[in-house]
Amino acid sequence: MTRIYLDHNATTPLRDEARAAMISAMDVVGNPSSVHAEGRAAKALLEKAREQLAQALGAEGADVVFTSGATEAAALACAGRGLQCSGTEHDAVAAWCAADLPSDGQGGVEVADPARSALQVANSETGVVQDLPAGLAVTDATQAFGKIPFSFNGSGAVMALVSAHKLGGPKGVGALVLRRGTDLVAQIRGGGQEMGRRSGTENLLGIVGFAAAAAAAVRDVESGAWDEVANLRNILEKALEADAINTIFVGNAVKRLPNTLCLATPGWKGETQVVQMDLAGFAISAGSACSSGKVRASRVLATMGFDDDVAASAIRVSLGPQTTQTDVLRFADAWLSREKKHRARAA
Amino acid sequence: MTRIYLDHNATTPLRDEARAAMISAMDVVGNPSSVHAEGRAAKALLEKAREQLAQALGAEGADVVFTSGATEAAALACAGRGLQCSGTEHDAVAAWCAADLPSDGQGGVEVADPARSALQVANSETGVVQDLPAGLAVTDATQAFGKIPFSFNGSGAVMALVSAHKLGGPKGVGALVLRRGTDLVAQIRGGGQEMGRRSGTENLLGIVGFAAAAAAAVRDVESGAWDEVANLRNILEKALEADAINTIFVGNAVKRLPNTLCLATPGWKGETQVVQMDLAGFAISAGSACSSGKVRASRVLATMGFDDDVAASAIRVSLGPQTTQTDVLRFADAWLSREKKHRARAA
Repeated sequence: MTRIYLDHNATTPLRDEARAAMISAMDVVGNPSSVHAEGRAAKALLEKAREQLAQALGAEGADVVFTSGATEAAALACAGRGLQCSGTEHDAVAAWCAADLPSDGQGGVEVADPARSALQVANSETGVVQDLPAGLAVTDATQAFGKIPFSFNGSGAVMALVSAHKLGGPKGVGALVLRRGTDLVAQIRGGGQEMGRRSGTENLLGIVGFAAAAAAAVRDVESGAWDEVANLRNILEKALEADAINTIFVGNAVKRLPNTLCLATPGWKGETQVVQMDLAGFAISAGSACSSGKVRASRVLATMGFDDDVAASAIRVSLGPQTTQTDVLRFADAWLSREKKHRARAA
Repeated sequence: MTRIYLDHNATTPLRDEARAAMISAMDVVGNPSSVHAEGRAAKALLEKAREQLAQALGAEGADVVFTSGATEAAALACAGRGLQCSGTEHDAVAAWCAADLPSDGQGGVEVADPARSALQVANSETGVVQDLPAGLAVTDATQAFGKIPFSFNGSGAVMALVSAHKLGGPKGVGALVLRRGTDLVAQIRGGGQEMGRRSGTENLLGIVGFAAAAAAAVRDVESGAWDEVANLRNILEKALEADAINTIFVGNAVKRLPNTLCLATPGWKGETQVVQMDLAGFAISAGSACSSGKVRASRVLATMGFDDDVAASAIRVSLGPQTTQTDVLRFADAWLSREKKHRARAA
């Protein structure tokens, strides 16, 4: 039986456009820092990718600093700035901030001092989308970019973090986008690449894959491909809601990413559900998806005011552009039959 | 006319083994941190690469932390440790150290306090190879690994930095290797990957390419492929020495990398030579090769006691396993004819 991958917020399959761009760039010999013809050819490819990414991000005129991912971009953007954030932020951001901004029960965060705060565009676990206040210091656009329209220049944020592998690019490459003129203290120092903001020979293959994937992802967003994904997510949600009477559908009263469904069934551990569904042929996740092998109660749900029992029972189902109606209906059947057994045992 | 690439210390073409491993890994969908089957498959690939790299490095039993390159590995190894080094170290290391250890005229560095010092295995510009003292805190093995035999466990160093793209792997991936139990303060924080030492979803394609290239490079070293490279380098050196009577052949009285030739012709700027040779179809470099578009007098040569005029005239010719005798003889002819013109103008 073919497996069904419903964990697109953890990582996504490589898009054909990214694969083709990377394979083609494998023949480029030079180091972008070298001044000879081979170096200039590599540099041209790098700068073309930077321009392509800036365009996909609505960040024309802003600076794009390529990094090894959104996590490194978060460190570069946030470390030493004394920022404030909510506990619903990803660990990569929360690690550098005072995570004391409250969240309401639907994941909404009110930012008191935008110039000294970080706020995500959309949450990885719940899909909840925030309204960004003007002048926000840092926004984590990792989950939103490539799934919903996002324009850096239109966002009013000073800095934004993005990642390739959430939108069909390769793992291990991302970027920090920042308004021109923003101060930045380099954390990785040496050769002075990326205008002195991030040294080290550039991940050229990853970067061209990122740019190609981002361009393709934005085309998908504009062509309405995610409206169909949202439709499938809603079909799935309705199918589950009809039968799973004890289940909480987190964040479903507010704007969410089109592909994300977060559900908590108190008393049935998220971790257990992930393993059961894995054995049944479905890939989903529990708690924060990007962390390393850890499974624990969701800090995101705890911040939203859910108690430990609820937070520990949360799972995330995240669809991709290739997900079909058959996929979500098969998932609904398989999950509901296990949910029924769980309820019978618990009764 | 086919161009001749003689800048292998700046970066190397992707090895077939790395290309094949990367293309194959493009079909792996999961995030190594995910607990489902797709995640475990990605994790297995990651850990296989880690083992393969450790074996190629003679680092069995040591920890391998994958990074975005040797530059990031240097920051992770050196920042906050108050280390001492020589001005012959790469910028990525020197950025974090007091660069006050003297070098002799052949590039030899005497380390006073190994436990608080960094010393490279081999220099990127001159190819000069150091004898590492026991108990050295950090060694930069970037240029040596894959060109001469190097064993981390045999080196006596506590930590070592390595990079993929210097030995036929992709750009933008490297590793910090460290004796188990060594304290390390994570600089990139978040999901807790790499045993909490370096967060962020792993660059899986880059990592499998690195490991495959490293294994192939070490096989080449063991099979004597670089003896032939050394032979060609020596043929080139002798050809140039015979005619270029004002030229200094840096570091040629001591052990050097088999592929590296550093020559300084006072009064003839290295930068000018690079451009002239580029127009003639040859890729070489001047000064430090990894830095970003900068061309400046070599700090390495200045540290070795050469005056500015000499340091500014240095070029580096670095051969690869595919370099042929025809390549080096064509280079010798082209360079010598320009050197003769330069001497005539200067006279």
